[in-house]
Amino acid sequence: MSIPETAKEIHLVDYPTGKPTPEIYEVVEAPVREPGDGEILMRVVFMSVDPYMRGRMNPHVKSYIPPFQKGEALDGGAVGQVIKSNSEKFATGDYVVGYNGGWREYYTGPTDGFNKVDPSLAPLSAYLGVLGMPGFTAWAGMSQILEPKEGDVLFVSGAAGAVGSMVGQLGKLKGCKVIGSAGSTEKCDWLTGELGFDVALNYKDYANSTELTKGLSQAAGKGGVNCYFENVGGMHLEAAINCIAFGGRIALCGMISNYNDTKPEPGPYNLTNLIGRGVKMQGFIVSNFMLLARDFYAEVGPMLAGGKIHFRETVYEGLEKAPEAFNGLFEGANTGKAVVRVAPDTA
Amino acid sequence: MSIPETAKEIHLVDYPTGKPTPEIYEVVEAPVREPGDGEILMRVVFMSVDPYMRGRMNPHVKSYIPPFQKGEALDGGAVGQVIKSNSEKFATGDYVVGYNGGWREYYTGPTDGFNKVDPSLAPLSAYLGVLGMPGFTAWAGMSQILEPKEGDVLFVSGAAGAVGSMVGQLGKLKGCKVIGSAGSTEKCDWLTGELGFDVALNYKDYANSTELTKGLSQAAGKGGVNCYFENVGGMHLEAAINCIAFGGRIALCGMISNYNDTKPEPGPYNLTNLIGRGVKMQGFIVSNFMLLARDFYAEVGPMLAGGKIHFRETVYEGLEKAPEAFNGLFEGANTGKAVVRVAPDTA
Repeated sequence: MSIPETAKEIHLVDYPTGKPTPEIYEVVEAPVREPGDGEILMRVVFMSVDPYMRGRMNPHVKSYIPPFQKGEALDGGAVGQVIKSNSEKFATGDYVVGYNGGWREYYTGPTDGFNKVDPSLAPLSAYLGVLGMPGFTAWAGMSQILEPKEGDVLFVSGAAGAVGSMVGQLGKLKGCKVIGSAGSTEKCDWLTGELGFDVALNYKDYANSTELTKGLSQAAGKGGVNCYFENVGGMHLEAAINCIAFGGRIALCGMISNYNDTKPEPGPYNLTNLIGRGVKMQGFIVSNFMLLARDFYAEVGPMLAGGKIHFRETVYEGLEKAPEAFNGLFEGANTGKAVVRVAPDTA
Repeated sequence: MSIPETAKEIHLVDYPTGKPTPEIYEVVEAPVREPGDGEILMRVVFMSVDPYMRGRMNPHVKSYIPPFQKGEALDGGAVGQVIKSNSEKFATGDYVVGYNGGWREYYTGPTDGFNKVDPSLAPLSAYLGVLGMPGFTAWAGMSQILEPKEGDVLFVSGAAGAVGSMVGQLGKLKGCKVIGSAGSTEKCDWLTGELGFDVALNYKDYANSTELTKGLSQAAGKGGVNCYFENVGGMHLEAAINCIAFGGRIALCGMISNYNDTKPEPGPYNLTNLIGRGVKMQGFIVSNFMLLARDFYAEVGPMLAGGKIHFRETVYEGLEKAPEAFNGLFEGANTGKAVVRVAPDTA
């Protein structure tokens, strides 16, 4: 395959205040660098947009991953084909997925965090979703923090998202009663239909945490919520803590409702419930559990092959749509995993 | 020993709003009931006042223990002598400690939660403190939730209290750098003096969580706080979460700063730190770990006998002082364990 002299990448022009606006991005035509020793050149087919990227747009937050730099290309997960390899890890022509390489048409760089994928087992984009970081995130939160038991009541917010939809399905396979929240009738229908959730709550029907508490309490039944998988924050967390069972577990994966706040939101008013009810609330990011990636593939691969796990994707066409795809995460515009098709999927 | 016909007990006349006032209590002269089958009659020597009792004064809170009933005697931990036993568990003359029997001069009832104590090993009152529920609470939170390692930075709030003073000493014995907060110079001097804490912060020197964060951050050093034992809530929790290390642990034992609030306080504004830093925050009450009581005595008994654990008590004289002793918990009036001497310690 020929290597172009230049290609497009999306730069961060300025850090956003509140919800990112189009002005903070710039599409730049930049030279395509030849790979150095141990490096690869990848033609990106799909790039991922994920909520954690909003955190990298805050320059002053102490977090597990450094902020994006102004005037440089953004970055993130991507799947594509190796065009040229100076690495023993991959051959030219291999399809690979990595935590880098997004927000651009071509990636040149090291192979850390890249793995070879098999396009005959699942569509390439699935390696950014159900078989990628979101799927692994769901699996890790369930298996390492919530540890749901048969008969437990599991509540997951952001249930129609890439992570949440996987959480709920894993819960059903464990024998849980699964309650999900999402932001539209269509999403709720998908949850209780194809995905087999027991109850779906459209959170837009609930004005505040008191109302949501009533709805969740009714859905959970007398024993309350044993496991809560948190993607949203705000009134969702407060309602879940109101309904949490004795000995309950809460996995904090994300709080997307807060990510665009220009001033910090107060935490829930009912944290003392965690004391009286002996509740564990644990935050995590998937890299905390990276050593378990093999276990994830071993468990989830066969589930997917066996048709026990379903997934949807919202596909945006063309690199220039990446900012729109990203904002879709905060606007509830996406169902399942949101990806951007950067080049035709030739696999 | 002779059994009196009547004795004093303290009744709850009304549920408090905010800080309990003297009017909510009534000292009642009530008949002393003969023990039934399997029951004991105990002459109370010391009764305990503990922060959790404030929760039992809220009639509508769903918690691990039912609320006190209006017009009935209050209840709580007590240590005393068995005057008459219809139980095979104890003989007349035995000294016993139990989770019931407080707020009265004589206790008649079942022996659940009562254990025999040896007054020659430690003063009777110690079985309500360092060798009792607060000591066990400290040990359980440390060994079962925080799991501090040598070199970890441990922060404990309410550090001059019955639980906190034990937490810090256990931390020093584990090889931690220990930081405690308390509300007076005298208390802080005790922490860094007799108890061997590395740093004591007088929280009254800090106007808000931002200020306390600076003080704590400086005390903790660059690596931050690995373990936080929470007794206070409010700005303490927010400051601790600001300073928490990657992979940190937080044991939620109490939030005494909130217990008299007439409207709920918001939670900390920085809970998303728990996600990015992979932090576990676990609430608990000591009864979650009751099966480990034997391990507690096996570990802490020799520490105490060997002079490795120090403790102080604030002793109030006479049953009528119980309401004052109780309010002292919220006013910072007590150092170490607060107890009420109900009868002369004849042991």
